[in-house]
Amino acid sequence: MALIVQKFGGTSVGSIERIEAVSDLIIKTQQQGHKVVVVVSAMSGETNRLFNLATQIDEAPSARELDVLLSTGEQVSIALLAMAIIKRGYSAVSLLAEQIAIKTDNMFGRARVEYIDTERLKQELEHNRIAIVAGFQGRDVEGNVTTLGRGGTDTTAVEIAGAIQADECQIYTDVDGVYTADPRLVEQAKRLPQIRFEEMLELASLGAKVLHLRSVEAAGRYKLPLRVLSSFTPDEGTLISFKETPMSDNPVTGIATNKDVVFYQFSTSEAKIFAQFLSELAKSQIEVDMLHQLSRQVDILSYAFTVQSNDHLAVLALLQSEPFAHSINEVVFELNMAKISLVGLGVQSQPEVLAKSLTVLADKQVTPKLMSTAQIKVSILVTETQLHSVINQLHVTFLP
Amino acid sequence: MALIVQKFGGTSVGSIERIEAVSDLIIKTQQQGHKVVVVVSAMSGETNRLFNLATQIDEAPSARELDVLLSTGEQVSIALLAMAIIKRGYSAVSLLAEQIAIKTDNMFGRARVEYIDTERLKQELEHNRIAIVAGFQGRDVEGNVTTLGRGGTDTTAVEIAGAIQADECQIYTDVDGVYTADPRLVEQAKRLPQIRFEEMLELASLGAKVLHLRSVEAAGRYKLPLRVLSSFTPDEGTLISFKETPMSDNPVTGIATNKDVVFYQFSTSEAKIFAQFLSELAKSQIEVDMLHQLSRQVDILSYAFTVQSNDHLAVLALLQSEPFAHSINEVVFELNMAKISLVGLGVQSQPEVLAKSLTVLADKQVTPKLMSTAQIKVSILVTETQLHSVINQLHVTFLP
Repeated sequence: MALIVQKFGGTSVGSIERIEAVSDLIIKTQQQGHKVVVVVSAMSGETNRLFNLATQIDEAPSARELDVLLSTGEQVSIALLAMAIIKRGYSAVSLLAEQIAIKTDNMFGRARVEYIDTERLKQELEHNRIAIVAGFQGRDVEGNVTTLGRGGTDTTAVEIAGAIQADECQIYTDVDGVYTADPRLVEQAKRLPQIRFEEMLELASLGAKVLHLRSVEAAGRYKLPLRVLSSFTPDEGTLISFKETPMSDNPVTGIATNKDVVFYQFSTSEAKIFAQFLSELAKSQIEVDMLHQLSRQVDILSYAFTVQSNDHLAVLALLQSEPFAHSINEVVFELNMAKISLVGLGVQSQPEVLAKSLTVLADKQVTPKLMSTAQIKVSILVTETQLHSVINQLHVTFLP
Repeated sequence: MALIVQKFGGTSVGSIERIEAVSDLIIKTQQQGHKVVVVVSAMSGETNRLFNLATQIDEAPSARELDVLLSTGEQVSIALLAMAIIKRGYSAVSLLAEQIAIKTDNMFGRARVEYIDTERLKQELEHNRIAIVAGFQGRDVEGNVTTLGRGGTDTTAVEIAGAIQADECQIYTDVDGVYTADPRLVEQAKRLPQIRFEEMLELASLGAKVLHLRSVEAAGRYKLPLRVLSSFTPDEGTLISFKETPMSDNPVTGIATNKDVVFYQFSTSEAKIFAQFLSELAKSQIEVDMLHQLSRQVDILSYAFTVQSNDHLAVLALLQSEPFAHSINEVVFELNMAKISLVGLGVQSQPEVLAKSLTVLADKQVTPKLMSTAQIKVSILVTETQLHSVINQLHVTFLP
């Protein structure tokens, strides 16, 4: 018998039929002898519907009231799912954040979980009830409703699983696991039966949309095995594991891609100006990636970096403002770039990964704009038009 | 400066436009120097939409989970209304039942309010904030979500007004006050500027849809002045008052009507059988009205009474079951009857009310099936086809 937390996203409970299907799946888990806590998102489309109501009233609605509004989406889901399980003759109870004391800070719209009281949950499980918890929401110290922001229901599931020391946290979604690459880009992409936590963390931060970074980080804190599965075609999915043993001889486990990247390059003769520039970007919450510095000659420093395209206009405006307009020269930027990242625990220790990658690029007559290596990844910046051909050849090379 | 509780029903907040209009109305009240607590229903249609989702899963859904589901309707309304007020530059805060401790019993779907903690409400008012409370809902002693059933938001408003000793509780709805008769039936119906509490209690229990009986009863416990107004055309509305002075020389204040009534008559020779019959009806929560007993001769008792038409089949089935099938005889029933009730503090002491009513009926060549008098009302049972002509003539006679 295991203690399992199951999370179902919006598309998994997106209709009455889906709620019925998910209730069967939960009951099956209990019938296998497990104790089950379920964490549920709002039905797909519901959060957008509510958000649209709010913005009809105020384009920038009160953050506190927006959380009161949006949190109703999950409340609807947990009630309907509990009804479906009860209708099938099993015991279930829906639980709101205040009922199991999911305490957060008071950052409305992006609150962080600080504490969960597991007493009530344990009681319900002892009575053999399936506990169905509203994801995405908490209460601050004053009892105000808070929401956890993007990926919030994943976070709720992982935090609860950590707090009750669950054996496994299963993230049911609309994809059936973690792939070696985005299957829409790479036909040969294969599903991974297992992936190491550190690798998943890199893939999540690199834009693999399967799991949100915060929930993977939280799983890491608890050393909690995570499993990604499809609620549409449930099978073994992909297990995100903390085992120390290597999973394959392959140095590369997966290849992540980021499109809509903008490449920047410029030079300056004032040493401190780039530090000041970075600090201004940070203030505007603009993330800088693939940062490189070249000292071409004494007193002329050259910098290259990338940002996401939705930050492009803000970066340009900053470069045109003082003191940067007068001290930064030779500004070059290029839109529609793509970052390819080879991720694997073996990447760092095996220089062939870099060598083989360069060979692939040379064969394709592609000169990368930038390359960078970090702990367990190698990243390559190419144009979006080069992306498809390069990533498929890299996949053939490293993940045959 | 007064302390005012304002309640807005579903049609009053039924769209974004309505929510905007209501927020202006609330702000106006505050600008007049009053402290304002607002209690809000779900947007019209929302409760039905949620109920339909539930019954798609289970025709008789879990009562606990149904309350979790339905209570989201009011939560949406309070958040949107708070946003609209904040957008206009005023301070507002939405409050859920758990945040001001609206404690109820645990009768899901028809819970009764037991206690309200006024501390938080008073704090918000002291900070000059408009407090916007979700109507219709509470929490039981275990923290489960409960709802108060039909008219629940009125009840919430009155209970809060009573608890904080408000000067007035204003019930905004889609009619602009209490009328001398249903304006759809009686063209000459006039709005009453004031009505005595005891009269309103009779009118509410007789089916005048303006206020729910439970909220009028609750107002009576607190001796709380209630006002019924329209949120569409706000003016003075109708004040339900506790003043001892008579309001007019008219013995009749209003005329209520109940359609869909079924008339029953039967006889029995066994004295205890009717008591047993009534107790069976009570078990099935069937309300019996206008009960009459006639002793036609020794050992033969004749009974007449009415029920609402939706209970008709249940009554028939009971009469055909034992022991009633063998001991009750001469069963006669008549569908499509209507009850007209003349209500007024002066009715009881003025025999002319009964006399004049009989004259009106005789003039119209209507023989009432039943007549009954109680404290402050006279009720007359006619057929639905006679209703229009009789009620209009009664109105001309008593409320010229």
